[in-house]
Amino acid sequence: MSFKRLQGKIDDLKNPTVVGLDTDLAYVPENILEKHIQKTGENLEAAALAVLEFNMSLIDALCDIIPAVKPQSAYYEKLGPHGVMTLKKTCDYARSKGMYIIVDGKRNDIGSTASAYSAAYLGTVKVGKVEYKPFDADALTVNAYLGSDGIKPFIEAATKYDKALFALVRTSNPSAKEFQDLAVSDCNNGSPEHEKEKIEPNKEANEKGFSSTLYSAVGSLIEEISLDTMDEYGYTRVGAVVGATYPQEAAFLREKLKNTFFLVPGYGAQGGSADDAAYAFDENGRGAIVNSSRGIIAAWKKRGISPTSAKQFSAMQPWAAAAREEALIMRDSLRRALYK
Amino acid sequence: MSFKRLQGKIDDLKNPTVVGLDTDLAYVPENILEKHIQKTGENLEAAALAVLEFNMSLIDALCDIIPAVKPQSAYYEKLGPHGVMTLKKTCDYARSKGMYIIVDGKRNDIGSTASAYSAAYLGTVKVGKVEYKPFDADALTVNAYLGSDGIKPFIEAATKYDKALFALVRTSNPSAKEFQDLAVSDCNNGSPEHEKEKIEPNKEANEKGFSSTLYSAVGSLIEEISLDTMDEYGYTRVGAVVGATYPQEAAFLREKLKNTFFLVPGYGAQGGSADDAAYAFDENGRGAIVNSSRGIIAAWKKRGISPTSAKQFSAMQPWAAAAREEALIMRDSLRRALYK
Repeated sequence: MSFKRLQGKIDDLKNPTVVGLDTDLAYVPENILEKHIQKTGENLEAAALAVLEFNMSLIDALCDIIPAVKPQSAYYEKLGPHGVMTLKKTCDYARSKGMYIIVDGKRNDIGSTASAYSAAYLGTVKVGKVEYKPFDADALTVNAYLGSDGIKPFIEAATKYDKALFALVRTSNPSAKEFQDLAVSDCNNGSPEHEKEKIEPNKEANEKGFSSTLYSAVGSLIEEISLDTMDEYGYTRVGAVVGATYPQEAAFLREKLKNTFFLVPGYGAQGGSADDAAYAFDENGRGAIVNSSRGIIAAWKKRGISPTSAKQFSAMQPWAAAAREEALIMRDSLRRALYK
Repeated sequence: MSFKRLQGKIDDLKNPTVVGLDTDLAYVPENILEKHIQKTGENLEAAALAVLEFNMSLIDALCDIIPAVKPQSAYYEKLGPHGVMTLKKTCDYARSKGMYIIVDGKRNDIGSTASAYSAAYLGTVKVGKVEYKPFDADALTVNAYLGSDGIKPFIEAATKYDKALFALVRTSNPSAKEFQDLAVSDCNNGSPEHEKEKIEPNKEANEKGFSSTLYSAVGSLIEEISLDTMDEYGYTRVGAVVGATYPQEAAFLREKLKNTFFLVPGYGAQGGSADDAAYAFDENGRGAIVNSSRGIIAAWKKRGISPTSAKQFSAMQPWAAAAREEALIMRDSLRRALYK
């Protein structure tokens, strides 16, 4: 689904939050796991079924207040093929509840292999005369280290099937700076090819050297190669992952990449605040979505639910109620930071 | 499994080849698919079972002449959860035949998410009191764009479970140069932190600017952070992906990264020759392994098998015989290029 439709969902709910379903087995209540172990045995299938049940209860508790889910593929692969079945069924369930689905796989490869990943997550696969959508996500995260060869097959699939992708640009982790912040220039020509005709976006940022960094070059390339996929809201089909933990860099990129929708990790557990995340948004509080994973889905492990919420959400299981309470707190923080 | 053991297998067979199981459904003979469709219907499960049967027949035809397999995860994910089950079963079968298994997933993430990928492919997962190895590969390919945060969890798992990884350094595709060849320097200090105390490895290469590139910085970092994992053969647990299509760059990296084992894609279909690939090896013809995927597994689609081979391999299905014939040609080309 294009970012126009994602922005539409965000506008409807007045909430630019995506809940990250980084569902480690350690976050799943023991009684859920125990039930599946009783049926299936102490095995990866039981674990995968427990994760699915937990995810479904979270989606039920959140789908009327949060527009999007972002299952993190690693936690499903960790449970083997049964875990990947849970990833698929989680996508199916979120879709049935009207949520926008971002599979966080950070996939990357070239040519026919990149096309195979695209077919898996965004496209279709034909067996005999029947066409299947293996995961049918709305968007997939990708890694651009391989260059445009590694992005174009995803753009083709996104265009054909009305989907989108997010490329890693400036990530939220401490060592992101090791490569992403390096000052780059073309060995022969002084600056990367795709940087040459760009207008310098931000004087202060340039003085800090932001515009000559690798992440800036990655950002320029992904916007440049996707401009012809722009929708009526002005967003291309290739979004950027831009961490909330580096607000200055986010501000620079927001100014520079006017047609790029941002996915913002690093809120909450990683230290980014709503005010930090706000730098990834445009002047109208649009063009970005902020992820929280553990902060929401593992809220029940961190603390009990407040008496008010316990009463208000009494029909829910306690972990679902804690997730909803936390999601409402995050929504209200983002609203305060963005819609002043 | 450490690279010492991989090198041992290569030495035993005198063949530094890894066969890439990039098994697109289009490479699978129609009669195999048809059989599974008859049983299961025109669905992704039938496709996945057909790919598994094809892979097993290839492994049978190759395991006594090729030391390693490299299933490309994308082609299995493309068939959904059933495809991922085929990936797992392909690993199981290759292991039972004594082959070294490199899962080509180019995975990348940080912290607990990187640990989850490590557990999936290299480590173990506990459910109740039972410990499982979800895929149990010997090595996994990873992408280092996120920095050392994104590599260290994989190194930890590799060390704990006697496994290894390969990080993308200089890839084989035409647009690899867009980012990987950019000249880099630290914004504040002139050159990346981990480059500072390195001895310049190669005068000629430096004149060409190789030593100031991003891929050179990535190579330095992965060797530096893994030096304490070095085995008796001098290899760390973090190998490097270095394409055969850029022999000059490969020669530079071989000289620079003395303790790093190389995985070399780009042979054959992508245009790299045995002589090109030879630059990735040390002076004794060791320290690297060359991948061929389509060239071997889809040989049967390109041409019929030669009359000599048809006679010699008469017990095999024709696609398996064609793969074996092609694998022997590649082995002999590499032997000529390396062991002079």
